Amino acid sequence: MANKAGDFTEAQVISRLRDIFATSDPRVEIGIGDDAAVVAGTDKRQVMTTDMAVEGVHFRTDWSTAFEIGRKVTAANAADILAMSATPDYLLVAVALTGSEDIKWIEELAKGIKFEADLAGLQVIGGDLSRSEKIVISMSAIGHCDFPVTRKGAKVGDDIFLSSLTGWSAAGLAIMESKFTAATDAHAVAIREYKNPTIDYQFSATGASSMCDVSDALVIQARQMADSSKVAFKFDLTKIEDCAEFVELKSLSQAMGLDIWNWIFAGGEDHVLLATGVDLPGILVGEVIAGTGTLNVPAGVEDSAWLHF
Amino acid sequence: MANKAGDFTEAQVISRLRDIFATSDPRVEIGIGDDAAVVAGTDKRQVMTTDMAVEGVHFRTDWSTAFEIGRKVTAANAADILAMSATPDYLLVAVALTGSEDIKWIEELAKGIKFEADLAGLQVIGGDLSRSEKIVISMSAIGHCDFPVTRKGAKVGDDIFLSSLTGWSAAGLAIMESKFTAATDAHAVAIREYKNPTIDYQFSATGASSMCDVSDALVIQARQMADSSKVAFKFDLTKIEDCAEFVELKSLSQAMGLDIWNWIFAGGEDHVLLATGVDLPGILVGEVIAGTGTLNVPAGVEDSAWLHF
Repeated sequence: MANKAGDFTEAQVISRLRDIFATSDPRVEIGIGDDAAVVAGTDKRQVMTTDMAVEGVHFRTDWSTAFEIGRKVTAANAADILAMSATPDYLLVAVALTGSEDIKWIEELAKGIKFEADLAGLQVIGGDLSRSEKIVISMSAIGHCDFPVTRKGAKVGDDIFLSSLTGWSAAGLAIMESKFTAATDAHAVAIREYKNPTIDYQFSATGASSMCDVSDALVIQARQMADSSKVAFKFDLTKIEDCAEFVELKSLSQAMGLDIWNWIFAGGEDHVLLATGVDLPGILVGEVIAGTGTLNVPAGVEDSAWLHF
Repeated sequence: MANKAGDFTEAQVISRLRDIFATSDPRVEIGIGDDAAVVAGTDKRQVMTTDMAVEGVHFRTDWSTAFEIGRKVTAANAADILAMSATPDYLLVAVALTGSEDIKWIEELAKGIKFEADLAGLQVIGGDLSRSEKIVISMSAIGHCDFPVTRKGAKVGDDIFLSSLTGWSAAGLAIMESKFTAATDAHAVAIREYKNPTIDYQFSATGASSMCDVSDALVIQARQMADSSKVAFKFDLTKIEDCAEFVELKSLSQAMGLDIWNWIFAGGEDHVLLATGVDLPGILVGEVIAGTGTLNVPAGVEDSAWLHF
């Protein structure tokens, strides 16, 4: 069959990818095509992270387009840089393909990566292509910051904020799995957030005492931050219920007969920022108190599945 | 069954990995365990690369131990940094596991990564664990340099050098595939180089006009360098035949009834350095002349398999 990746030499595929990822950033001295990329040094601290996504585990090619998959994996990496209160700089992309993808699919994947990278301010400077039975996309993102905000640092008396409401991605996954249909905005938003989580690139962490990216379940990430900071995270469900997003998500959970709190606390992959501090932007969801662990997480929230590796 | 990875929480596995990868490098301000690692900035140019290895494609768990697999993938990434004439600094490691590995296998993988990283001078600062039907290991390496040596820059009149002889990894693969046995040093070296390629960490590229890591076939990499540099690479087979390693490899190829030139020119994964310049260390294998492409590559060398993506 024509136009399968196997019909193209690696050099031809890389040449197309190099065009898509072309950058005029003067810091990038050598981009894609040599053994490694070369960029200008920086006197700032550097922030480095990696995240891998596997077909069938993190995405499905029958549910998401290549463009959407490219965006989603890029977003996950960018969010980890933001979660340190850092500015994204560079992205390395390693992809294993099955060989049955056509060249257009590969280009769309690259364009999705490029689209989200542009939103994040990431320059795609290098990559690797290999073969696998399932598609695997692994990225590393590098950024810079003056002072990182870690998971450790939440102080008693701080408020707890989410940059936006968690649960939408889990709701979208539930829709995809159940094939539930509804002509509502919430339905569309949930599917979109599952396929292409909206990253809060403009979230200002100034003044945050601790922060993390909610890639796993909120309850797990909150517990990690609480443990690292040697405090307790006390959620205030009435405050969460007050936010406009909650009302929308609630309409969807009711229509589907599913538990909204399970989506919000045990979902994951929303890549919103969970931060502590005073007068931060986003949704006020609780307060930091003396103690350990998390308080007021709704009963019945199933978080154990996410904890097991 | 006890001690499978699935019996451990992700936090427990990460805690063990954090111990294995512990570093006292003062540049590493925040290592494994937060959303991203934080390192001190550098006023040097930075070199960044990524490389992915897939079970069944790049390694086999029935042929190599976890320790050997960890070393090999780390070596491939370190070699790309060296190939720019740069000093390795940091390594990010993303691994997808099937869930049937026991905790000891995971620890041995980590120890192999750590062992090779120590040889290379790489600090393992971050990672990601996920699930897949086949094991996938993707790494990104970051280094620094004053002046990178790229694939572009070979000049007419330069000599061509290999830091050591290519072909050993291909020979080792041939042994593994054919189950050929022989109680010779060459047999043992070939298997070792297939499982754990020896990286020429001390190779001094001072004065090199161009350089690359021979991860694919030598003939392909030579052609890429020649094309990038707008010159021709003329090999001198008698010079290659003169080197001590050739004599050893030749004894093996004759014993197996296989073509030594195919191993040397069309093999791959040796991760030796191919460099041009004057009076470089290593094996003199030819000269740079005016023209295009490669000259004197032995007839019958099958390189097409490596070219197709």
